[in-house]
Amino acid sequence: MANLSDVARKAGVSVTTVSRFLNGSLSLPEARAQQIRDAVSELRYVPNPHARRLSRGRSDAIGLVVPDIAGPFFAKLVAAVEEEADRRGLGLVLHATLNRPAREVRYLDSLRMRHLDGMIFVTNRAADAALLDAVRSCRHLVLLDEDVPGADVPKVFCDNEAGGRMAGSHLAAMGHRSVLFVGGASEMISGRRRYRGFEQELQRIADGPVRIERVLGPYTPETGRDAARHYLQMDPRPTAIFASSDDIVIGLIEVLRDALITIPDDVSLIGFDDVGPLHLFAPPITAIRQPVRELGGRALGIVLDTLRNDTGEPAPTEELLPVTLVERASVAPPAGRSNAAVNRRASP
Amino acid sequence: MANLSDVARKAGVSVTTVSRFLNGSLSLPEARAQQIRDAVSELRYVPNPHARRLSRGRSDAIGLVVPDIAGPFFAKLVAAVEEEADRRGLGLVLHATLNRPAREVRYLDSLRMRHLDGMIFVTNRAADAALLDAVRSCRHLVLLDEDVPGADVPKVFCDNEAGGRMAGSHLAAMGHRSVLFVGGASEMISGRRRYRGFEQELQRIADGPVRIERVLGPYTPETGRDAARHYLQMDPRPTAIFASSDDIVIGLIEVLRDALITIPDDVSLIGFDDVGPLHLFAPPITAIRQPVRELGGRALGIVLDTLRNDTGEPAPTEELLPVTLVERASVAPPAGRSNAAVNRRASP
Repeated sequence: MANLSDVARKAGVSVTTVSRFLNGSLSLPEARAQQIRDAVSELRYVPNPHARRLSRGRSDAIGLVVPDIAGPFFAKLVAAVEEEADRRGLGLVLHATLNRPAREVRYLDSLRMRHLDGMIFVTNRAADAALLDAVRSCRHLVLLDEDVPGADVPKVFCDNEAGGRMAGSHLAAMGHRSVLFVGGASEMISGRRRYRGFEQELQRIADGPVRIERVLGPYTPETGRDAARHYLQMDPRPTAIFASSDDIVIGLIEVLRDALITIPDDVSLIGFDDVGPLHLFAPPITAIRQPVRELGGRALGIVLDTLRNDTGEPAPTEELLPVTLVERASVAPPAGRSNAAVNRRASP
Repeated sequence: MANLSDVARKAGVSVTTVSRFLNGSLSLPEARAQQIRDAVSELRYVPNPHARRLSRGRSDAIGLVVPDIAGPFFAKLVAAVEEEADRRGLGLVLHATLNRPAREVRYLDSLRMRHLDGMIFVTNRAADAALLDAVRSCRHLVLLDEDVPGADVPKVFCDNEAGGRMAGSHLAAMGHRSVLFVGGASEMISGRRRYRGFEQELQRIADGPVRIERVLGPYTPETGRDAARHYLQMDPRPTAIFASSDDIVIGLIEVLRDALITIPDDVSLIGFDDVGPLHLFAPPITAIRQPVRELGGRALGIVLDTLRNDTGEPAPTEELLPVTLVERASVAPPAGRSNAAVNRRASP
């Protein structure tokens, strides 16, 4: 691992110069300053173990990088980690990336340069090579909520596939055979696993032909609005919608309500996350609930365990925390089915 | 202002030792390390102007300290600042204090030690001497959303008093004369100003006896639940409730709904913030909307203006951004009034 002398050698300056430059106590001509910044970044320099131990005594801080925190899920996730950190007397350095690639790498690099005990990283998009590279270069990093394939680090996710199965079996048991799935891209484990579980269980219980249409996109209200517009143009329309985030649920309801589509009479709706106030909506929304507090607390716990045991880099593991189905009033048998029943009764 | 030599002198070590210790490239016995940390904190050492200019070239980062971000208002506020920072190519270092005094001071001090261009600070409690001291010791700091009385720094708030007036006049115009105010402590400008505007306008328009009862507490769902329990025990019950945050609205509705109190038939409800999905609630909630995006963007703008003009410390100013009344379905004339009308019609 590169040390201060390597950086000094590469930048062609003295160790003291690099040292004072990096702690901001020395001003340099921009050209010279740039040489040092380049050397630091090319060598992916991080303080040596002594400095890291020292820094623990000094900062007792963990880094947490999340996507946009405007949505309820990530806001609650950050709060969960912050509360657990507070309980343990630790500080937290937060960065919100707005889920933008350049910002993710920038913040990971900036945290890497700080004297932090460990890092928790949350992305909400399909990872690319640059992100994988940045993640790999961080020490004591734990991935939370979404995967960065190829990163050999501890990972803590909710049991996305089990959540998908719960949604699928709930809709199938209610009699739905034609559904719209609104969720994340297949390159993301959250999207892929939720859909896989959903499709498997829907088909298993339906025990007959099933029609599943998909609208994929970020977990935002806009994706929900797009999906609702798509639903309105479908013919025949599916009898149920599985919206795999709170924000997607919000966007969907906005557009469906304006189109005078009533839930669950015209279409059933089941959500995922259940962090926002879905219980106060009209109607209260049935959803798969993520254990957001446990997710945040567990991720921090893994970081601290590896530090306490001083085992160096934590072993790559994947923990799945259980989700639960919260039944409310947004799922009912398909209208078509009751009509059929009516017709049967009407016929001689 | 203390410089590196002052710190070295006070700690009884060389400048190079302090410099290398502070950038984490030098390990010291804990006793010696503590001497330096004490000197840094006693002298409130911050990097010299050269270092700060240098650090801008290096980090281009602003610090943002907020209370609990689990609630929709602060989550959206952080997102607004982050988006504005991203638009300007700046990074943001976030800290969430959980609104705890010790954590606020700790994070302000930690940001002060970093090489940041400026800071935006948001508290959600009545300030004390320790917080005022910490705020005063920070350079290029802007207060957002809530005041820290005595701090001579730029301040950006929403127009809380105008919002209170809008709520008061709306309820009074609907015929309400007995209301419950649920909001922040009078030591906080948000609580004091919202109530003052509310009371003034309610009395002015009512033009007769008005009964206002108050339940004060943090802007949390728990405060809303407490207020609802209090409401249920009141006799006679007020005909309307002014809940001065989204989270208070959520807690109120939960308890009122369980008690089978219907809005607005049994009691009218008007909220404040309107950042959460109140438009999807049953019924959709009338509320005073805060300009959350403008608040975040303006606070960052003030920090950057003072840096661009290199005017040193920004002049203490107070900007109030306008709020708006968003009418939905949670406010109606008091039940008593229509009953009275019915009785009048019934009588000969």
